[in-house]
Amino acid sequence: MYSHELAFLPFLSLLIILSSGASVRPSYFETLGSHEYQSKAIPSSYSVSDFKTLYFTQSLDHFNYRPESYTTFKQKYLISAKYWGGANSSAPIFVYLGPEKPLEVDPTTENGFVIDNAPQFKALIVIIEHRYYGESIPFGSRDEAFQNASTLGYFNSAQALADYAEILIHIKKRLGAQLSPVIVIGASYGGMLASWFRLKYPHVALGALASSAPVLLSPDIVIPPEKEYFAIVSKDFRDTSESCYQTIKRSWSEIDKIASQRNGLSSLSKKFHTCRPLSSVEQIKSHLKNLYREAAQYDNPPTYPVSVICDAIDQTHSSPNETTLKKIFAGMIAYRGNNSCYNVDTTMLVSDPISIQDQISEGWFWQTCSEIEFPMGINNNGTMFPPSPFNLTSDIMLCNMFYNVSLRPHWVSTYYGGQAIRLTLRRFASNVIFSNGLRDPFSGGGVLHSISKNVVAVTTEKGAHALDMASENNATDPVWLVKMRKTEVKIIRGWLSKYYADLDDV
Amino acid sequence: MYSHELAFLPFLSLLIILSSGASVRPSYFETLGSHEYQSKAIPSSYSVSDFKTLYFTQSLDHFNYRPESYTTFKQKYLISAKYWGGANSSAPIFVYLGPEKPLEVDPTTENGFVIDNAPQFKALIVIIEHRYYGESIPFGSRDEAFQNASTLGYFNSAQALADYAEILIHIKKRLGAQLSPVIVIGASYGGMLASWFRLKYPHVALGALASSAPVLLSPDIVIPPEKEYFAIVSKDFRDTSESCYQTIKRSWSEIDKIASQRNGLSSLSKKFHTCRPLSSVEQIKSHLKNLYREAAQYDNPPTYPVSVICDAIDQTHSSPNETTLKKIFAGMIAYRGNNSCYNVDTTMLVSDPISIQDQISEGWFWQTCSEIEFPMGINNNGTMFPPSPFNLTSDIMLCNMFYNVSLRPHWVSTYYGGQAIRLTLRRFASNVIFSNGLRDPFSGGGVLHSISKNVVAVTTEKGAHALDMASENNATDPVWLVKMRKTEVKIIRGWLSKYYADLDDV
Repeated sequence: MYSHELAFLPFLSLLIILSSGASVRPSYFETLGSHEYQSKAIPSSYSVSDFKTLYFTQSLDHFNYRPESYTTFKQKYLISAKYWGGANSSAPIFVYLGPEKPLEVDPTTENGFVIDNAPQFKALIVIIEHRYYGESIPFGSRDEAFQNASTLGYFNSAQALADYAEILIHIKKRLGAQLSPVIVIGASYGGMLASWFRLKYPHVALGALASSAPVLLSPDIVIPPEKEYFAIVSKDFRDTSESCYQTIKRSWSEIDKIASQRNGLSSLSKKFHTCRPLSSVEQIKSHLKNLYREAAQYDNPPTYPVSVICDAIDQTHSSPNETTLKKIFAGMIAYRGNNSCYNVDTTMLVSDPISIQDQISEGWFWQTCSEIEFPMGINNNGTMFPPSPFNLTSDIMLCNMFYNVSLRPHWVSTYYGGQAIRLTLRRFASNVIFSNGLRDPFSGGGVLHSISKNVVAVTTEKGAHALDMASENNATDPVWLVKMRKTEVKIIRGWLSKYYADLDDV
Repeated sequence: MYSHELAFLPFLSLLIILSSGASVRPSYFETLGSHEYQSKAIPSSYSVSDFKTLYFTQSLDHFNYRPESYTTFKQKYLISAKYWGGANSSAPIFVYLGPEKPLEVDPTTENGFVIDNAPQFKALIVIIEHRYYGESIPFGSRDEAFQNASTLGYFNSAQALADYAEILIHIKKRLGAQLSPVIVIGASYGGMLASWFRLKYPHVALGALASSAPVLLSPDIVIPPEKEYFAIVSKDFRDTSESCYQTIKRSWSEIDKIASQRNGLSSLSKKFHTCRPLSSVEQIKSHLKNLYREAAQYDNPPTYPVSVICDAIDQTHSSPNETTLKKIFAGMIAYRGNNSCYNVDTTMLVSDPISIQDQISEGWFWQTCSEIEFPMGINNNGTMFPPSPFNLTSDIMLCNMFYNVSLRPHWVSTYYGGQAIRLTLRRFASNVIFSNGLRDPFSGGGVLHSISKNVVAVTTEKGAHALDMASENNATDPVWLVKMRKTEVKIIRGWLSKYYADLDDV
């Protein structure tokens, strides 16, 4: 379920979510067809009972020695030694780095790559929850932890990486597996963490597989306009259907036009079958924008949600006086399923239960308001969206208003780098795979060209966000996806054999 | 003046210093002959006026987003562009990372390697003060900053590295010198920082020269007994003079024997011409221990302080009933000069003014009580000292008593690594020089064998602590020292030419 990683949560909708309370939260999480690729044709070699759930006593602050920093909390992690070759043979450890969400109750429904490949590598599996998500909450409770910036302050990527290091060192020690090579694996934000972990803790992890990790999305790094998030969304639609792209492109002014008329909002509410009357035109526009965005982000086989939308748009006939909105609505219901009405109060279109969704959105909102700033403006040259330039200042103001501390948009690139990445990592670092599907709008912020022999990019023309991390499915996986995963496995195998040779040698 | 870097400050003496106030602070800082190698025969290409003093508005906490963490303070740095080739030619930047002491008023009296070599490289020089030393004090004043663990909590190596990164990124931006390669240089603790900086911030620094950096001194890393600090001190003495070594070795029981007699302490006070009567036998023993320790640490040409002490010990004739203590005292005065009396209240034998010494000792005491734990026990196999096994628990207790927070002795190896360093860095990282003189007792915790083609060890049989960082002196520098520095310069030149080739290529 990679549906929500790095979900682009526009501040406007977050304002709505966070200020309006649970009563108006969306109720249509179950409908998304875009995640069918998660279904398994190959039975998993693991079942939930093969995993032990453990809790590590974690320090609140690794980089500070104030008395408060010594506070601890219980961090959750899962472990399975079902196929592990053991410490004596220095068999490897595959570690899935939890991203911005709670761990799944059944770890085999996620972590596809790890689950599918651990047996052949005789790898121990470890899955670690990211601090402030799920059960890994400091200060005794979620309410306490999320109270304000004073309690949220400890919630950031550097602390999370240090958590992983502490836990992995602890596990290796406890198992006497100090020489077992660790491979860290993650997707999306978790992929960013994986690559950063290899860079910052090479003594803990031998290598990293970073799937769909937009490590170059930063206000400090200029990426070409055609690689911007919404430019790729638009390209995905245009590649799928030029007429669909054109329909969407012209729909915004249609919507505005209707909205500006007498009873316009009410007319739009009817056209889009909204469960509650629209309170502003922006509500339906940002809902649609996010629907297209998400479809493109997960435009993966076998369903290809962009095709689902575009087929509906293209196949719907509208008379000239019906405008294009009949088509647009047809696209929306094709994607979201046939409901009696549609909740467009928020833009969150993901399939997790509400409570998990709350955690993700509140946690990620803090992270984007403290250090993770993705410059995702729309400059409309070639996109199908109304212009909406990136505005760092207004993001900072809004976050300040919320948390009373300022976003630090430059810290991530100060700490992890990224500027001139090909130059700075060319002769430094090793054993990182950056994998990307080029239909993923986040791929524009990814590393798409190998930096050196051992810091490599694996890309596919088709496929979108983090598809290589999903469970294998013999029935529906296309050839290029099978090949992509094989390439990744082969590279990891190469790291390990070099490592074992070094081990004999040193 | 590398006299105090990583000065080994036994807790007992620190207790004395910190609890007794300024009135009993030692007054004999000016006498040490061991630092004559600092004197210059080659006139420096720089004078103090070639440096601009600047202050950077630094964040109090880089790894935390609590409101308090946004507090800023002024961090001092010096800059000289006298010989800089400029941003247009991407001329390099040499950065001296301030260790555990205030910056010198005249930067040309320190930073020998940087000062001597910057002109031939057309390098910009930057010298940055470490937070909580000198003027780079948060909370408005030293008194406030050192008040308790709540204000001291922000004082640690990871924060210091982040400070350097922020300042260097700022400088490069301001000068439009984003492509100018940065070489970080440091000695002792500063050398640890330099190597760590290259590992953690490869996108900011192209390479690091880490002189006498005991990066492997950690409770988590086992080093062989003969490489322990006091084993090397003892070897230095034994290599210099077997009889001197034997004299010192047997002196401890002589001291104990006298002390145990009626009026023994008073008799010892007379024998050692102490300015104030000894209050315990440990006082004189730890004073002597530190005197030998320091002589060995700085057993550098042209003076070779171990020889100074041993010559005096060996050449002093004592009648059988005078015991060996007449010899020991002769060694002491040979090293410390002829004074009317000797202050043995503390073990601090360095040549800085008292106020600077206070800053160093108080700052370093915090650092050793929070994260830097050097396991420096004496197990007395082959050493000339009374046994004094390393006791982590008592260090932790003592620090707890002082600051009410616990030492975190494992954090440094968790964050920076070191365990199995040859294995973990063999195929990761590049462009680090670890330089050591093997007479340096800290060299046992250094990297003495090259890890890879680009992470290299440069060692000399002779020479002790951080000698390569001292200013060149044509008149007295021995051949091996000249050669050592040439090797370092050649390696750095190699990094730079590879970098410029990559720059043309990428």
